[in-house]
Amino acid sequence: MKPFLTLQSVDGILEYINDFPALAAESVPLDAAAGRRIAEAWRAPADLPGFDRSTVDGYAVRARDVFGAQEGSPALLECVGECPMGGVPDFSLAEGQTARILTGGMLPEGADCVVMVEYSRQAGGGLVELIRTQAPGDNVLMHDEDAAQGEELIPAGRLLRSQETGLLAAFGEREVRVHRAARVAIISTGDELVPLEGTPAPGQVRDVNSHSLAALCRGVGADVRMVGLVRDDPARLRAEVEDALGSADVVVVSGGSSAGMRDHTVDVFTSVEGGTLLAHGAAISPGKPFILARAGDRCLMGLPGHVTSALICARVFLLPLLHRLQGRKEEEIAPAVPAVLSRAVASAQGRRDFIRVRLTKGPEGYVAEPVMGLSGLISGLVAADALVLCPENREGLYAGERVLAELLD
Amino acid sequence: MKPFLTLQSVDGILEYINDFPALAAESVPLDAAAGRRIAEAWRAPADLPGFDRSTVDGYAVRARDVFGAQEGSPALLECVGECPMGGVPDFSLAEGQTARILTGGMLPEGADCVVMVEYSRQAGGGLVELIRTQAPGDNVLMHDEDAAQGEELIPAGRLLRSQETGLLAAFGEREVRVHRAARVAIISTGDELVPLEGTPAPGQVRDVNSHSLAALCRGVGADVRMVGLVRDDPARLRAEVEDALGSADVVVVSGGSSAGMRDHTVDVFTSVEGGTLLAHGAAISPGKPFILARAGDRCLMGLPGHVTSALICARVFLLPLLHRLQGRKEEEIAPAVPAVLSRAVASAQGRRDFIRVRLTKGPEGYVAEPVMGLSGLISGLVAADALVLCPENREGLYAGERVLAELLD
Repeated sequence: MKPFLTLQSVDGILEYINDFPALAAESVPLDAAAGRRIAEAWRAPADLPGFDRSTVDGYAVRARDVFGAQEGSPALLECVGECPMGGVPDFSLAEGQTARILTGGMLPEGADCVVMVEYSRQAGGGLVELIRTQAPGDNVLMHDEDAAQGEELIPAGRLLRSQETGLLAAFGEREVRVHRAARVAIISTGDELVPLEGTPAPGQVRDVNSHSLAALCRGVGADVRMVGLVRDDPARLRAEVEDALGSADVVVVSGGSSAGMRDHTVDVFTSVEGGTLLAHGAAISPGKPFILARAGDRCLMGLPGHVTSALICARVFLLPLLHRLQGRKEEEIAPAVPAVLSRAVASAQGRRDFIRVRLTKGPEGYVAEPVMGLSGLISGLVAADALVLCPENREGLYAGERVLAELLD
Repeated sequence: MKPFLTLQSVDGILEYINDFPALAAESVPLDAAAGRRIAEAWRAPADLPGFDRSTVDGYAVRARDVFGAQEGSPALLECVGECPMGGVPDFSLAEGQTARILTGGMLPEGADCVVMVEYSRQAGGGLVELIRTQAPGDNVLMHDEDAAQGEELIPAGRLLRSQETGLLAAFGEREVRVHRAARVAIISTGDELVPLEGTPAPGQVRDVNSHSLAALCRGVGADVRMVGLVRDDPARLRAEVEDALGSADVVVVSGGSSAGMRDHTVDVFTSVEGGTLLAHGAAISPGKPFILARAGDRCLMGLPGHVTSALICARVFLLPLLHRLQGRKEEEIAPAVPAVLSRAVASAQGRRDFIRVRLTKGPEGYVAEPVMGLSGLISGLVAADALVLCPENREGLYAGERVLAELLD
């Protein structure tokens, strides 16, 4: 009789995953930091922009000198000069005076707003007519309006996007402290497998999981080592896992994760030094024969051999682990578009189902059409745009039900 | 008087962008192909898996031999052997016979389904009791069930994800033909700017756009060359743009894109060899002073100097251009989440507004809270999680309105 797995809930397994500590910080050049997570909270070291800047081309004025100005009753002001770009005006404005200024220029002392050039007319003799009333601050970026010194603008663990890169550039941060990339070793097991460059004999198939899992991990910036194929032999698998643990933060083994006649992974994981089993069996479909173990701060993960199960299980557990190791602190927003399910899908209570769907644009938003197929099929996942979850407390989803479809990027 | 821009619609400008041809194809190793777009439609060169495989551990049988089998009335079959992993069984099943088989094993001739080991009992004398009725095909992956020879599984221009990588691995595709990465040269203009490593004097600020735009382009796989700062001098800008055109597919100039006193970009773009202006002015906010030109198949793009305008304008026009050059053929699903707008936002008819929002999780999904701030502020975009569009035919969005928030990744 085959032993039964003790299935743990997805949320329970994710709690174990959140117990892993973040990897060490390292300094990287600013232009290589996007896509990494900042290791410490970042505060503005000074005011930005640091001086009052015009946001338009026009005339710097005191608001009270153009109060009530309009087409039929312009304010007549003396133009005393032009504000230099990238420099400090060497004059200040007295009552009734104005100065030309360009977008980005520094306001002269005495000015508190800018009238756009569209609302000006040359009046001759160094005089200008302005035909627009303004409030103080109009068309001006104040010295601390973008950032005030000491303000926390990037919390620890935040993914650096293009805009964070820009903010850090504004302050001259040439290097950024980020968490280092997770090192992941990927092993495939299965006596029926041949490597990519091999030719399968009848009864054999090529190793798919090494390549799909490597692509998934690299997509979140991990540093992947593809160990390759290991035979269904506990001693050899153990040697490879121990070797991989020497340099990897995460060792992923696909295949042999169930409790069947040739499923050695769980025994191997518990036999390595410090190896502690956290979960064997997850209450999800596809992906039930999942293994999570740790050896110190390093993680051992066993994924099913079925190609679709392996990839979905990796999305559900391996990606959150990599984000966690690479510094993620808070839950982040998964891209999920609203859609209407095209037909009913049965599930089972107590299990979280991940339904592969194709999204098509209908007149009232997206329609999610389930892509059928066994978990051993990779083509079903290729045809899918997104996953729809059927939660543990539901026995299925109805046709026409409004769902959130999590994009498979 | 400052000349007015002739604003073109976002969709009109995107049509010009879709006129640019895709870049040439190149071969890359499979494990480097994820994130690139396949250059030609890909068809399965053979059936996959190529033979009938068991999807469980159990007993291979003919369905008719276990018809009606159950706990109280088992089918008694003669076990004639074990199917080897990765090989061809050297026996076939006659009536009343069965064979042990493991997950992934090849079915022996004569078998048409598999009974899971959980439903078996050893009966002694080489006999096995099976207590489950099955239909032909149960627990079997048929020889062409994942892919049938000749079937188009990846259309031309499709982004290769982890699952496409896996599918190509299954067929031994060691190299993949993908479109080459777009080469982008990025130039910042503005006499008030100093480079990252400089110290701004009063009236000066650091160049932000070079760094934020480079990060954005690299995020979609483009090959970026940061040219750096060029003074507000048409002759120098023209020399730099011409030099960049020698090696780049796209030259991006930020700053000087309006029609003001120091806005030289549009004149420079039309003065280079073959330079043809397509648009000067886009009906969007922020980002109105936008320039699109082409010189042969190369694209010249002028973005506003304001840091937030530049980045949003780049998302709206530069990213679609890069996707197009890198092979995108069809519209794709933008990562977005549904949200409820926390308060009303005014816009203007005839213009597409991109409202920066922070997303917070409420009891009924996400709430989108507009982040206020001028388009010259980078911190507002740092505080934002997503953009909400207010379309051209609306004068604003209501508080409580259901919107799609496009994630700023």
